Amino acid sequence: MQVYLDNNATTMCDPQVVEVMQPYFSEQYGNPNSLHKFGSSIHPALMNAINQTYTALNAADADDIVFTSGATESNNWVLQSVWIDHILNGDKNHIVTTEVEHPAILATCKFLEDQGVKVTYLPVNHEGVVEVHTVKSFITEKTALVSVMWASNETGMINPIKEIGEICKEKGVLFHTDGVQAIGKIPVDLQDVHVDFLSFSAHKFHGPKGIGGLYIKDSQALSPLLHGGSQMGGRRSGTLNVPYIIGMGKAIELATQNIQSTMASIRAKRDRLEDALLELSDTFVVGDRNNRTPNTILISIKGVEGEGMLWDLNNGQIGASTGSACASEDLEANTVMLAIGADNELAHTGIRLSLSRFTTDAEVDYVISHFKGAVARLRNISSSFAKQGPSKGGEVQECELHHH
Amino acid sequence: MQVYLDNNATTMCDPQVVEVMQPYFSEQYGNPNSLHKFGSSIHPALMNAINQTYTALNAADADDIVFTSGATESNNWVLQSVWIDHILNGDKNHIVTTEVEHPAILATCKFLEDQGVKVTYLPVNHEGVVEVHTVKSFITEKTALVSVMWASNETGMINPIKEIGEICKEKGVLFHTDGVQAIGKIPVDLQDVHVDFLSFSAHKFHGPKGIGGLYIKDSQALSPLLHGGSQMGGRRSGTLNVPYIIGMGKAIELATQNIQSTMASIRAKRDRLEDALLELSDTFVVGDRNNRTPNTILISIKGVEGEGMLWDLNNGQIGASTGSACASEDLEANTVMLAIGADNELAHTGIRLSLSRFTTDAEVDYVISHFKGAVARLRNISSSFAKQGPSKGGEVQECELHHH
Repeated sequence: MQVYLDNNATTMCDPQVVEVMQPYFSEQYGNPNSLHKFGSSIHPALMNAINQTYTALNAADADDIVFTSGATESNNWVLQSVWIDHILNGDKNHIVTTEVEHPAILATCKFLEDQGVKVTYLPVNHEGVVEVHTVKSFITEKTALVSVMWASNETGMINPIKEIGEICKEKGVLFHTDGVQAIGKIPVDLQDVHVDFLSFSAHKFHGPKGIGGLYIKDSQALSPLLHGGSQMGGRRSGTLNVPYIIGMGKAIELATQNIQSTMASIRAKRDRLEDALLELSDTFVVGDRNNRTPNTILISIKGVEGEGMLWDLNNGQIGASTGSACASEDLEANTVMLAIGADNELAHTGIRLSLSRFTTDAEVDYVISHFKGAVARLRNISSSFAKQGPSKGGEVQECELHHH
Repeated sequence: MQVYLDNNATTMCDPQVVEVMQPYFSEQYGNPNSLHKFGSSIHPALMNAINQTYTALNAADADDIVFTSGATESNNWVLQSVWIDHILNGDKNHIVTTEVEHPAILATCKFLEDQGVKVTYLPVNHEGVVEVHTVKSFITEKTALVSVMWASNETGMINPIKEIGEICKEKGVLFHTDGVQAIGKIPVDLQDVHVDFLSFSAHKFHGPKGIGGLYIKDSQALSPLLHGGSQMGGRRSGTLNVPYIIGMGKAIELATQNIQSTMASIRAKRDRLEDALLELSDTFVVGDRNNRTPNTILISIKGVEGEGMLWDLNNGQIGASTGSACASEDLEANTVMLAIGADNELAHTGIRLSLSRFTTDAEVDYVISHFKGAVARLRNISSSFAKQGPSKGGEVQECELHHH
């Protein structure tokens, strides 16, 4: 049996999604911006995908949803264009974010700091959650933007987006949320919360990799990141990725249409897995499971290096993670665990298991059994083995792809 | 019969390309940056695609090829990062480009002008070609970058990239070329020309829409446009679009492996079509066909509005264009024709026919016949009909897609 429990890194593209994309590669391949039937015949399917996306997020007609190459682009777009519009060419100088954002936010903030922008990285509490009063206390008259992720990729912990949105509205500060880990896992209703910008990626909810979007409330002004042929009303140029836009529409519909029952089903399996693993001595899981995305467990096993654990799970055909896949080459301590106050040793023991709606009970049984065996095996050998052995000689491979 | 002659706007995805992508949606769906078999099992296919791309462009091992969401992103990346690296944070203030670039260059240059950058838009000669001495004469000590397209999307005319590259090298100025219309149409050998940056898009050579790349000579420094999880060696963050990267590798291999015979075959059909259309009175084609991509005809038919012609061709199931698809909603005069010195009336008569390696002789025959009929029909009716009738009431549809 092979079991994929790394759904916070990426997900399987739903076969139904693959199916709806098929005709748009070699049959209906026109450019939708072309003035002929090869182009215009694609419009109904594109309109359908746009409507599926609006419906899934409960966006209002006055809002814009702009398709991008994914949340990394969406996050960069918001931060860089707010910099250009309100700081470089405006009278603001400050952005508020958190210590536990995805690298697409943190690395962009570092870049903006190099350009002279003042960035506040808010701490999180011991649960890994940003507290509302902390956000409020750091907003100044010079603050252009607050950016706080809706749910954490590493812990699954859910931030108080509604409350933070109210504060930003009250203070007249733009509010962006990286919604990547929220969509398809918890209800996201953009007429219920005050969010100016929300980023998302299809590949986190069983859509294809390389497509996503940016929600823009009330079609708010924001300079483009990609200038050019004025596609998407001039907000994001570049020939439309027709198959993926249509696929993402289907994926977001499937991921959100029965969100309550999907959540309940995933959560039942997650909780059963979590309860079983917590039977092991000296283990703990980050964060209250009632305030966590229903698919995520970040578990720490005292005395067991995360990398060694990953290697043993991998040998058992189980895909898991020590944290963000994007930074997984680094073999560093889990930064989110450090942020919530874990010591360095403990922060090296984090293993993230993230389920999906395709995870079965049989898979959960298999993982419980293998995981318990792995902990016994790894606790029986020296920690230096876990450090030096598997990460060099084992089957865990280097990620970086070079041509050479 | 339906005939697609708008291959400079976008192309059919080659069924062989669709086939190689298939397993990477729902079977091998891991994130290649993940430290487990679901991720690492994708590496061989990715490496193969990388090698196919290097081979197709004859890039050297020391060069970088970075995958992006397409040439619009690649073009924006080069221009915006050169601005940040060498103008905002350096001592340069000037960029040289041409009047006839794609909107992804021209709109980005307008944006940079708003940021205080001095931009020179070089004229082209009556053939639509940038002359080497003109480039040379506008480079100053303050010039950070020269950006000249390899071949024109509208006319197919080929610029003297090798000579311009030598001048830039000699003057110590960075040189970028938008190679979108060159790859798969003419030989592109990056060890034969001196080009620092080259942009490309897969969907112009029968790959999927929404993937492309940027070639960077000698892995030259260039700040990222998309900051984040450090994919692609930190040069372009964002989860890799695995299926499309693999598809683009196959597409660029297919498009370039027999370039001489493919060119000869397409050119024979194009020349036959062109000769037949030139039998019509008062018609002319822009540019010497020996210095043009072998698939492209930009033809002007005196007294026939381009929009009317497009409408009649569309009724005959023929897809053509009045110019760049990206700006085709505008119903404006062809800017390239204006740039080469055509008057405004003539610039409204341009029709671009762009063939592909899938175009058949039977299709060419059909187009010749329908096109001649269309010219007769449209010349028989008043020019005001061509202006008001078809563009409002006909089957030519508006392109802009809105949710409302």
